[in-house]
Order: sequence, then C-alpha cells, then structure tokens
Amino acid sequence: MKKLGVAILGLGVVGSGTYKILTENKEYFKTVEGLDITVESVLEINKSRIEELGIEKEKVAKNIQEVVSNRNVDVVVEVMGGVTFAKEFVLSALNSGKTVVTSNKELVAKHWSEIEKTAKKKNVGFFYEASSVGGVPVIRTLIESMQGNHITSISGIINGTTNYILTKMTDNGESYESALLEAQKLGFAEANPTADVEGFDAMYKISILSSLAFNKKVSIENIYREGITNLKEKDIKYADELGYVIKLLGIGKDKETGVEVRVHPTLVKKDSALAGVKGSFNAVKIVGDSVGEITLTGRGAGSMPTASAVVSDVIFAGKHSEFYYQPFNVEKSKEVKYVSDFTSKYFIRIESELGNKDALKIEKIFDKGVVIEKIIKEENDGKLDVIVLTNVAGEKQTLKTLEKVKALKGLTVENIIRVED
Amino acid sequence: MKKLGVAILGLGVVGSGTYKILTENKEYFKTVEGLDITVESVLEINKSRIEELGIEKEKVAKNIQEVVSNRNVDVVVEVMGGVTFAKEFVLSALNSGKTVVTSNKELVAKHWSEIEKTAKKKNVGFFYEASSVGGVPVIRTLIESMQGNHITSISGIINGTTNYILTKMTDNGESYESALLEAQKLGFAEANPTADVEGFDAMYKISILSSLAFNKKVSIENIYREGITNLKEKDIKYADELGYVIKLLGIGKDKETGVEVRVHPTLVKKDSALAGVKGSFNAVKIVGDSVGEITLTGRGAGSMPTASAVVSDVIFAGKHSEFYYQPFNVEKSKEVKYVSDFTSKYFIRIESELGNKDALKIEKIFDKGVVIEKIIKEENDGKLDVIVLTNVAGEKQTLKTLEKVKALKGLTVENIIRVED
Repeated sequence: MKKLGVAILGLGVVGSGTYKILTENKEYFKTVEGLDITVESVLEINKSRIEELGIEKEKVAKNIQEVVSNRNVDVVVEVMGGVTFAKEFVLSALNSGKTVVTSNKELVAKHWSEIEKTAKKKNVGFFYEASSVGGVPVIRTLIESMQGNHITSISGIINGTTNYILTKMTDNGESYESALLEAQKLGFAEANPTADVEGFDAMYKISILSSLAFNKKVSIENIYREGITNLKEKDIKYADELGYVIKLLGIGKDKETGVEVRVHPTLVKKDSALAGVKGSFNAVKIVGDSVGEITLTGRGAGSMPTASAVVSDVIFAGKHSEFYYQPFNVEKSKEVKYVSDFTSKYFIRIESELGNKDALKIEKIFDKGVVIEKIIKEENDGKLDVIVLTNVAGEKQTLKTLEKVKALKGLTVENIIRVED
Repeated sequence: MKKLGVAILGLGVVGSGTYKILTENKEYFKTVEGLDITVESVLEINKSRIEELGIEKEKVAKNIQEVVSNRNVDVVVEVMGGVTFAKEFVLSALNSGKTVVTSNKELVAKHWSEIEKTAKKKNVGFFYEASSVGGVPVIRTLIESMQGNHITSISGIINGTTNYILTKMTDNGESYESALLEAQKLGFAEANPTADVEGFDAMYKISILSSLAFNKKVSIENIYREGITNLKEKDIKYADELGYVIKLLGIGKDKETGVEVRVHPTLVKKDSALAGVKGSFNAVKIVGDSVGEITLTGRGAGSMPTASAVVSDVIFAGKHSEFYYQPFNVEKSKEVKYVSDFTSKYFIRIESELGNKDALKIEKIFDKGVVIEKIIKEENDGKLDVIVLTNVAGEKQTLKTLEKVKALKGLTVENIIRVED
C-alpha cells in the first residue's frame, strides 16, 4: 500500500481539524483510498494545542527546516494563515520537493505566480481547494469538471461572516453593529473583523476563482472592493420593498470587452437561489457555455468544513501523483484586459429634509443621464426618503449623475448599492 | 504535447455534443489543458448524423472491432444508451486496453462489478460522471472532494423530465397528462416516457450515487421505486395547503441499521432549497460528517450539459493517467445490509362519500397505530376529502394501519406519499 507522510504547519482551527480527520480515519483511508496516511510532523508554537491533540513529542518540529528535511514527509499542509511566514515556509517546502496543500487565500491571491513557478520547477504539486469557499469543492469543479466549457461568469456568496451578519439584519431587523457583535460572540467573526466585513477575504477568493474560471491571472489590484460596514437598516427595508435582499457578492465576468471582477453589497431578487442562502452558508454560481448554470452550496468556513477540503487535497495529491499545477499560463497574466467601466442596475438611497424643493429636481437630473426604473418617496422619522432603482447603466455615468444630485441643497446620498438581476 | 485519441460510440444527442465540444475546442484544450485531443473514430449506423457533423469517411468505423483495434484510440466514449450492445462494446474496449468514458446509467447500475473487474484487470480507467445528473459534477465531488467524510446521506432531484412535469403541475395547476404532453412536445420527455416517469432513470442514478457515497455496491433490486404517474391535482393542492411541494426524489441513507435507498414522489417543505429547484434543473444534497451539507445544482440532462460531463472525464483521463477505478471493493458488495422497514412521515389522501359515518372512524384507526400530526377534511366536488399528515412512523406499521382504513365502507385511499422534512 502506498504510504503518504504529511506535515501540518499550524494547529489552529483548520490545522486541528485536519489532524483529527487524518488520524481518526487512518484505517478508513487504507480501505477506501488505498493510502496509508501518517501525520509525520507538526509545526506549532502554542504547546497547549499540541497537548490537546495528544501529539507525540518526536513529531513536533522545532523549525521549518526540520519539517522540509524530513524524508518521511511527502505533503506539507500550510494552515497557519498570514503571508510573511506562510510564503517563506511554502516556498521552502516546494523547493525541498514536497507537495504543498494550503487553505491560505491571501497567500494564493498575492503570490500565486511565484509559488506556481517554484512548483513547476521542482515538479511537485500545489493544491489550494481549502483557500476558497472552504468545504465547497468549487476549485476542483473548475479544474476537473468544467474543462469542456468556456466559463463566462462566476459569482456568489463567498464570505460566511458577512452573510451571517446580513441574514441577521434582514431576517431580524438588527443593526449592522448588533449583528456583528452577535457574530463575534458566536465565533463567526473575529475580534478584528476588517478582513471579512471590508470584503478583503471575498476579494482574495474571487481573485482565485475568476483566475481559474477564465484562465487568466486576475490580480487583486484590479478588483473593485466594497464592504458591508456602510449598510443601514433602511437599505435592507427599502430593498425588501422593491423585492430584493442584500448580499455581499463576489462577481467575476469574462466579457468581450475584458474581465470584470468585483466585491460589493448587492441587491438580489428575493426569489433567487442566492437569496435563500442564509447564515454562514456560501454559494457559488458558475456559468459555462456547455453546461449552463451550476450552483454549489455549503459551508465556506469553519474548522471541519475547511479541514475536509484540506484532506481532499492531501488524498488527491496522494492518488494523482503526476505533476500538477494550475491550468493557466502565469506569463500570460500580464496581458489581462480589465473592464474599466462596468454596467449595473443601481439602488440609490437619498435622505432629504421634508418640504425641500430641491428634492423635486432629483428625477430631472436622472432623466438627463440614467433611466429610473422605479422611485419610492416616503416620509420617515421627519425626513423624506427618496429611493431610486435605475435601469442598467454605466458605473461612471451613474456616479457622474449622482455628483449632480449631491450638489442639491438639503439632501444627502446615503448609499448606492449595485443590483444583479 | 501529450496526444489523446478518442473514439465515440453513438452520435445521438450526447455523442453529437461531445463531438462538437472536442473538435471545436481543439486549440483551447492544447493551450489550457496541455492535451492534443483528436476524435480518431466514430461508430454510428445513422449516416445522416455523420454527414451533419461533417465527419471524414475514414474516421467512420464499420464495427466495434475496428474501433478497439485502432492504435490511435486511447479513450472510448460510449454514449449509445441501452445495455446489450453497450455492455459488449465497453467490455471489448476495456479488454483491448482502452480507457472507457460512459454516460450510460443503466449500464453502470446493472453491470458495474463486471466492468470494474475488467478495468482493474487490464489496468485502464472507467469514468462515468455523465451517467448521473449530467453536467452536475456530483460523482467527481464524491470521489475526489469528500474523501475526508463519512457520508451519511445523499438525496435530491435527479430526473429532469419528472421535475419539469411536477413544476408544471405545481405552478400552473396542470394535470399530469397535460404536463407530460407538453414535456414531450418540448423534448424534455421521450415518446415512451416510462424510464423517467416510473422512476427507473432515477433508480439507476441513486444506485450509482449511493454506492459511491457509502462505499458499498447498492444494487437496484434493493431500491424501493415509485413513479409520478399516480399523482393527481388534489395531491399537489393539499400538499400546498400543508406547506409542501411534491418532488420526485432519489434518497440514499447510510444508517447504523443498514443502507436505505429509495425513489418516490416526496413532500418537501415549500421554503426548502429543493422546492426552489424547478423545471429540468436537478439538485443533489450530500451530507458528510466533516463538511456538513453540500448541495450541487444544475442541468441534469440534455445534449451539451451531458457532453460537458463526458468531456470532463475524457480530459481527466488524459491528465491523470494512472490506474483509476471505483473506491469500493466489489467483493464486499455482497455483504451490504439493507434497511427493510424505513421510517417517514406520510401524507395520505382519502376520498369518502359525503355523510359517510365510517369516515369518522379514520382517526380512531390511526390512533391505534400511527400518530396524526395534522388532518384536513374538506368537501370538494360532492366528496369529502380527508388528508392525513402523520408523525414519523414505520413504513410497515403505516401500511398495516392503512389496510384497516381501506376496509371501511364508502371511502378509497387515493394516494400515500412520503414526506422528508
């Protein structure tokens, strides 16, 4: 039987889950997969984690050199997070001829080219299913199941923390602040929630996913990013009146005019599949020219779902031992053309003083630039709320029109949110 | 660059789609996959199909021997359907050292063991992603993405024809007969719709899927099967009143007491993800102990979606050339234990004559055997409809109780439908 030695760098939530699955299912993997998998080495500074998992002392490495020089180690699992040490350790492992499995989306999004070149040069594998949408097998689907397709779009709910917060705001009428606090108490959001709520996490993921989908390296510098921190109860309420719910989406489109990738709060129709994806669940919709629309739904984060993806990569690496790298050419990445002015419908929420005559001019201004599909005017808390839902329009044209609206007296543009029908 | 020669047996809807994708994307596959794929041989009696696709005469084989003795052919794609010739041809290809890709669910479900043994013996691959749920990559997900899980259940909408018919009956209030006719006109149902509407197609698929999920060969003889031909408008109507829609589900569960696999019309909650899967779309829900719940949605049939799955297998075979077979041991299949008496909630529709005093006894009979969760009595078209929704109960106990109800005078048990909450 084929033996497979594994090293785990970092025993946090994902690392512990990976250790548990690999050790508790050793006999099962022998029978079902024909692989005798052993965790040969771990690297972790926090001793209590090592004790909790009951790992033998001789398996605890002192440093990365000890791990990568261990002849029994075939696959190095990097689940530490962060970029500085992770990058150094991953490159060190690849250069030592070890195949690497990682859950580190920031690392992949930022240093993919360098890592891929090293893996190619050393003829070893680099796997990262766990880096995007945790337990949902979207990366393997893109690489191994949709080859007969030109993929034109990939989009969805790819951050569980923000989806949890938005679900609470939508279903229970909570404020952003109160929903965030609850998410933090339950462990769905970190003490410093910036990476999630400002859309960085989703940006790394959609960078990876759209690169694979379109066979072009989509760099994070070219992704429009906006988080959910500016969303108010009124946005949720008026979106609801118009038949929509608000979700943070990652959106990637491959158009004739170029690649368009963005992360922002988005109005989606109430009866759409994405609207039904609640709490910490994620969902990714992929559109290919042969297969049409495929949607994958599941838990995008958490210890065991992410560890499940890590283990699937470890076993895939063990069974398919040939050279394995990403199916797009890194060198070609420089030539990617990006859409500079995307189009969308827009939801615009304006607050005006009651009786403000300038508010009557809003529609006139829009008339000259952007077609209004629907408008709501409602007196609320001594203010006049003006909600504009536009037809499809260019981003630049819309923002230009809004500048003119902002110049009117006695009103403020409170929010502008994009709409995907 | 690695060359890959392909033969296609059968140029019907799936075969034509496969031919088109492989030939039209030849350069794309070279760039992206690093494979130079050529269709070297086709086998098809209908000459007009060959002409329509513009296939060169020298590539048209006279018989299967010519195909399998062609040294340029590495992968044989069987997309003829049926079992007799398909089985002979597939075994012949495997025995000649060719890897086989098939979309033939009946063939896989019925002759898997023999095919797998032959593939193992000759050390070639046998791939069948397209056999179950067309373009939705559920087989690759089970084999390559969920290895770190013990899967406890796999279930879903796995037949597009019946889902199209049921959607029409539910959303438009059509009768079964009228919805079937419409499906036939649009090409969603065949002239002889038996395989779809009586649940055979779904049975083959759930046999394959639950075998892979549970690592045990689930034979079709042990699958409870019931089609949708007995469903009436009243079933849809009362299910709706109780908060449910009716879907034809394939259900596989791996329990401590054994494996339980069945295909039948099922009441699912209106707000469930499955209820939202409409028309010819399919959806499969998989539950694993690490990852939790994953749902895959997409087109389960049709020329291009199924061809997309065939092509993904051809390319997978070309890139991962090592020996490849199913991850369960055929010999162990004999030991599979099946659940003989499953449990479920039940929806029971009874029609009684108005003023029939025996109808009052229905509840008393249930009281002695099966707990009623809800009962509806409604006068309708000069009849009294009695709808019973039970608590979870054993199948045998429920059927025994119903026998007693049937013995009452002046009423008929019109339908009994299982419920999955």
